[in-house]
Amino acid sequence: MDNRQLTELLNQMTLEEKIAQLLQLTANFHEGGESQITGPLEEMGITESMVTASGSVLGLSGAQSVIDVQKSYLSKSRLGIPLMFMADVVHGFKTIFPIPLAIGCSWDTELAEKSAEIAARESAVSGIHVTFAPMVDLVRDPRWGRVMETTGEDPYLNSLFARAFVRGYQGGSLKDEPERLAACVKHFAAYGAPEGGRDYNTVNMSERNLREQYLPAYKAALDEGCEMVMTSFNTVDGIPATGNEKLMRGILRDEWGFDGVLISDWASIREMIAHGAAEDDGEAAYRAIRAGVDIEMMTPCYVQHLPGLIESGRVDEALVDEAVLRILRLKDKLGLFDNPLRGADPEREREVLFCQEHRNVSYELAAKSSVLLKNEGGLLPLAPGKKVALIGPFAQSDDILGWWSCVGVKEDAVKLGTALQERLAEGQLVIAEGSGVVSVEQSQIDAAIAAAQDADVIVLALGEDSAMSGEGGSRTNIRLPEAQLELVRQLKKIGKPMAAVIFNGRPLDLHGIIDEADAVLEAWFPGSEGGAAIADILIGRVNPSARLTMSFPHSVGQIPVYYNHYNTGRPMNPDKTEERYVSKYIDSPNDPLLPFGYGLSYTTFEYGELKLSGNEITANQPLQVSVSVTNTGDRAGIETVQLYIRDVAGEVVRPMRELKGFVRLELAPGESADAVFTITEEQLRYHHSDLTQASDPGTFQVFVGPNSRDTLAESFRLV
Amino acid sequence: MDNRQLTELLNQMTLEEKIAQLLQLTANFHEGGESQITGPLEEMGITESMVTASGSVLGLSGAQSVIDVQKSYLSKSRLGIPLMFMADVVHGFKTIFPIPLAIGCSWDTELAEKSAEIAARESAVSGIHVTFAPMVDLVRDPRWGRVMETTGEDPYLNSLFARAFVRGYQGGSLKDEPERLAACVKHFAAYGAPEGGRDYNTVNMSERNLREQYLPAYKAALDEGCEMVMTSFNTVDGIPATGNEKLMRGILRDEWGFDGVLISDWASIREMIAHGAAEDDGEAAYRAIRAGVDIEMMTPCYVQHLPGLIESGRVDEALVDEAVLRILRLKDKLGLFDNPLRGADPEREREVLFCQEHRNVSYELAAKSSVLLKNEGGLLPLAPGKKVALIGPFAQSDDILGWWSCVGVKEDAVKLGTALQERLAEGQLVIAEGSGVVSVEQSQIDAAIAAAQDADVIVLALGEDSAMSGEGGSRTNIRLPEAQLELVRQLKKIGKPMAAVIFNGRPLDLHGIIDEADAVLEAWFPGSEGGAAIADILIGRVNPSARLTMSFPHSVGQIPVYYNHYNTGRPMNPDKTEERYVSKYIDSPNDPLLPFGYGLSYTTFEYGELKLSGNEITANQPLQVSVSVTNTGDRAGIETVQLYIRDVAGEVVRPMRELKGFVRLELAPGESADAVFTITEEQLRYHHSDLTQASDPGTFQVFVGPNSRDTLAESFRLV
Repeated sequence: MDNRQLTELLNQMTLEEKIAQLLQLTANFHEGGESQITGPLEEMGITESMVTASGSVLGLSGAQSVIDVQKSYLSKSRLGIPLMFMADVVHGFKTIFPIPLAIGCSWDTELAEKSAEIAARESAVSGIHVTFAPMVDLVRDPRWGRVMETTGEDPYLNSLFARAFVRGYQGGSLKDEPERLAACVKHFAAYGAPEGGRDYNTVNMSERNLREQYLPAYKAALDEGCEMVMTSFNTVDGIPATGNEKLMRGILRDEWGFDGVLISDWASIREMIAHGAAEDDGEAAYRAIRAGVDIEMMTPCYVQHLPGLIESGRVDEALVDEAVLRILRLKDKLGLFDNPLRGADPEREREVLFCQEHRNVSYELAAKSSVLLKNEGGLLPLAPGKKVALIGPFAQSDDILGWWSCVGVKEDAVKLGTALQERLAEGQLVIAEGSGVVSVEQSQIDAAIAAAQDADVIVLALGEDSAMSGEGGSRTNIRLPEAQLELVRQLKKIGKPMAAVIFNGRPLDLHGIIDEADAVLEAWFPGSEGGAAIADILIGRVNPSARLTMSFPHSVGQIPVYYNHYNTGRPMNPDKTEERYVSKYIDSPNDPLLPFGYGLSYTTFEYGELKLSGNEITANQPLQVSVSVTNTGDRAGIETVQLYIRDVAGEVVRPMRELKGFVRLELAPGESADAVFTITEEQLRYHHSDLTQASDPGTFQVFVGPNSRDTLAESFRLV
Repeated sequence: MDNRQLTELLNQMTLEEKIAQLLQLTANFHEGGESQITGPLEEMGITESMVTASGSVLGLSGAQSVIDVQKSYLSKSRLGIPLMFMADVVHGFKTIFPIPLAIGCSWDTELAEKSAEIAARESAVSGIHVTFAPMVDLVRDPRWGRVMETTGEDPYLNSLFARAFVRGYQGGSLKDEPERLAACVKHFAAYGAPEGGRDYNTVNMSERNLREQYLPAYKAALDEGCEMVMTSFNTVDGIPATGNEKLMRGILRDEWGFDGVLISDWASIREMIAHGAAEDDGEAAYRAIRAGVDIEMMTPCYVQHLPGLIESGRVDEALVDEAVLRILRLKDKLGLFDNPLRGADPEREREVLFCQEHRNVSYELAAKSSVLLKNEGGLLPLAPGKKVALIGPFAQSDDILGWWSCVGVKEDAVKLGTALQERLAEGQLVIAEGSGVVSVEQSQIDAAIAAAQDADVIVLALGEDSAMSGEGGSRTNIRLPEAQLELVRQLKKIGKPMAAVIFNGRPLDLHGIIDEADAVLEAWFPGSEGGAAIADILIGRVNPSARLTMSFPHSVGQIPVYYNHYNTGRPMNPDKTEERYVSKYIDSPNDPLLPFGYGLSYTTFEYGELKLSGNEITANQPLQVSVSVTNTGDRAGIETVQLYIRDVAGEVVRPMRELKGFVRLELAPGESADAVFTITEEQLRYHHSDLTQASDPGTFQVFVGPNSRDTLAESFRLV
């Protein structure tokens, strides 16, 4: 339908029908074609007629269920406007991919795109139209449970992944490709910066900082054509995002020209009352509609109060009309007016969900997102024929999908122990639990020690259970649980070589394991094929290539610690750490334990000289930076060569380093290749104090290397 | 001199002489009447003529020295403009008072004023004219070492203390009262919010938050007539404070009308280069003079580059003229043109420094600033006649003055062991060190256990050494050092009653002692008379009355935690802590271990009903709130009754509680008195999103109680 037709449809709608389009409820209101308003829902004041006319559904999937609900809904619909079905498809639908933080560590945006395409296909054939993804919140605090859901601490890398996910979900045309989903970028804005790392907590930063660090990834998703935006739970400079006119009307709609659907997060309109930004539901509805929020998720502020607000003249009905029009337009883009059942197809559902092709991609992504953090003496890959004791609560755990694993089934996950067993010879592997995730009995440790006695090498499988991260999963202690550290301490005494695989959803303070183990592999929550991918890394079928996208702190007391920080006026001289009046801790390094961009390989790479095509750059004349990289080891491997820039002096201070590019070189043993980067004036722009973006003439440093710390350096001038 | 005369003087000055007035150097450049430019100072490019003409001196004291330098200086001065002598007199000069964080806990602004008056007297007779105090930075992060130098986390209380200190230092007239000092409020602005609690680190907050929480205390000092302001080391929204035009010209001078002297912190003009806000000294000078910084401390950017900047026309000489005029005006206010030697008086110096009268005030302040945190079973005060084992590295330590103790001498400090010995009978006290501050040998613990065997009660004297807080003293671990925790664990096994006295400069994570000890007294660094005051509290001569002005966190992983935080949209229900999707940690409470305003007494107080004079308030009609408080114990005591307000819904979100008033009731056993507060509309104003200050009609809650947590509550409406 074109705009005229959509407007005509709008004009046929009663005010009540319009407002009902703005309401989104969970499936239990609709399932079986009947609303099930009971208990607290009745208290919410939602009537059957509101449900009957509501515009979209949250969380229902399964092709037949969706078909049934849609048909029943339309049979009662006066104007035949179909329902939209939305769900949290975050890192896979039934085939679960590694958590997004792990996907980020692949630095492989094509594979990330592929994973989103597969998630879209599985979801779409199951009846879903919109996914509440990608989540692109910039994060710097590993206490926050939802760091597992983002690609990390860098605005540039997050932006690339934001674009990749949107491409993967949405494809080229939602109408022509019924096995794609509309994407909904979230959580706008700055949800990833809650104070104290406590979920939903206050966010406080300057607008300049918001624009410079936090907004780019949302903007990138929209530039890629992302159809929807979700508001965040937090306040942005004191006003809940969901009622924040400056953010939503000012930046999102007016400045960026976003004309898609803006949806509240779950109950976040009503939650303005708890925030203290509205005294009641009516005021909350007023603030949200003024800010431009189109869909209210799971609270009835709009349906109950917009009629009165319009009648009293406080709210212009035009605000509702524009919201409804945006919703209708999205339904049309999805092709729902032509085919309200769209991709939902029970047969296709049986065919594609968790199919081998999808699992293969999940495997590949898991293999490419596990980060080798330490490998003393080349303990990994495990030497052929050696006897292995696999010990730890994750040795045979299926809790490796991570939070938000949608309709993924733990029991389908490939466990590490099982996968290793398949790959090793009879009698080569013993497995012991060693401890629970958070509890341990001496008998478990004793059994583990006994198992280890005959082995040549111990492989520890440790970690956090999946509920220790994810939404609502914030921790003040980011070490491995004490039970597991005790297991490590006792096993360490045996004196055998020890490799550790860690399953978890956040950067941990790795003290208690990183010094004790000879090798450490950060497996994250690797998804459905996790065990297979990790096992192949352990035995050397796969050479790890992933790189951290969040800094690993020395301790929780060092938070926040991130690579693209600013300098101080009194930087510590690394050769004079005893100086008092410099910016430092008296009991800890300033730098993280492991820096952004860090990760090892089973092979080694050598960098040649860093070459610049000149020492000046102008608005029209870019600069070329190149370095030759050689695989000096004895196996093929991927080296992710990273380019960082520092503006030595700005009108406002500039980060010590900012990622501006990277190339992934796949090199055979002995092979060399050039990593070539082009630096343009545009890449040197930043937000000045007046919020304009511009570059400043002057000196810049350029750094190239395998991570944000160990780099070659040169400088040039912008003239 | 009036303005005309000062301007005439200015007109006689050469440009070089003017710029030299803007330079401040340490005393070694002047001592003995000769400049000692050697080594790095020569490298700084400071010439003898610059020193000879420089306008002020930093850090020199001692009446005779100052007299000698001043006379020598004037003998070479063409125009006879005297030097100004400045120093960091922070919590006492020779008589050392408790650290400011402790002074804050007294909630006694009169006594705080008295301490500043004494510090001024001792300093002034020793030749000092200006103190770099008060430090009024709002703080919320106990990792930061300089929390010891502030009065805490509350803008209202900090403002009251800011005013009290300024009154105490400056008195009524600097000219008529030569034993007062000009005060210099610092560090403007927001120095107390360094990221990660690491000194000098980046500060990031919105301007609204800056104005609402951080600026009030500086403003209060200026409203009290504070003569000077010092810039802070940090950036404020990306621009180093020292070169921040918006902050310094915009807010400080234009908006607040401050026309006094603005001084850089030590080297902070040149440090703009390290910050990345200037490429060289010349650019740093340019930014600082444009921002309105009058005096450059310890770097030569002004003297070297202002001449060229003026010559090239980049800087208007009028900027230098206004800076010089402000400096000359302050010299005149101090009476230096009439008497360049001002208060400096070797005889008076011998008379007043560390005199008994001053020590008495230090004693009183120490007694009123030690906070009783726990007193299970009424272990304290120590029952008469009981045998006491005083154990711990602070049992006989003189390291109890704290950082910035000026010319205070540790050896003059009254140690706890000595003071207790004097107060107890022969044989009633044994003393053992038990451990060092950060190290312990089993033999020390064994000796301590042996000492404790015969005692009825153990008194532990634990803490941080003074270098573990203060400038450059940031820690990532805020527990007592492990050595002392080990001592506690082993002593605990004896099973004797145990009271702990803790000497330290920050809120600590008290786990490892607060559960183990029956009683805990937070002594802070109590100053010259610390041991005497603590001993008198222990034996019950003094009934403790102090209250915390910073929250004590459960752990470093909970930081920041402060009482006047905002709510979230998903506050945790204390009765349903297992709920997942609420703002909480899965491994820690949200609330601090000990809340703001908390502190116990040896007696008990009961609160009657909270009474409001009405349920509405208008712009012209304030509201009266009162409660009757009764001393229900058997000793006289002081109860600090605190009034908090919450604006239930604002245009921007409002803190859960904000301190708006308090009264200190001194009550005899059985005595009752009313705490009466008047709430006016003005107290309900706050900074809206457009930065204007106004109140919003609506519901407010009012809380009254002995701390920020345990309160009676009522509500009223603003109409």
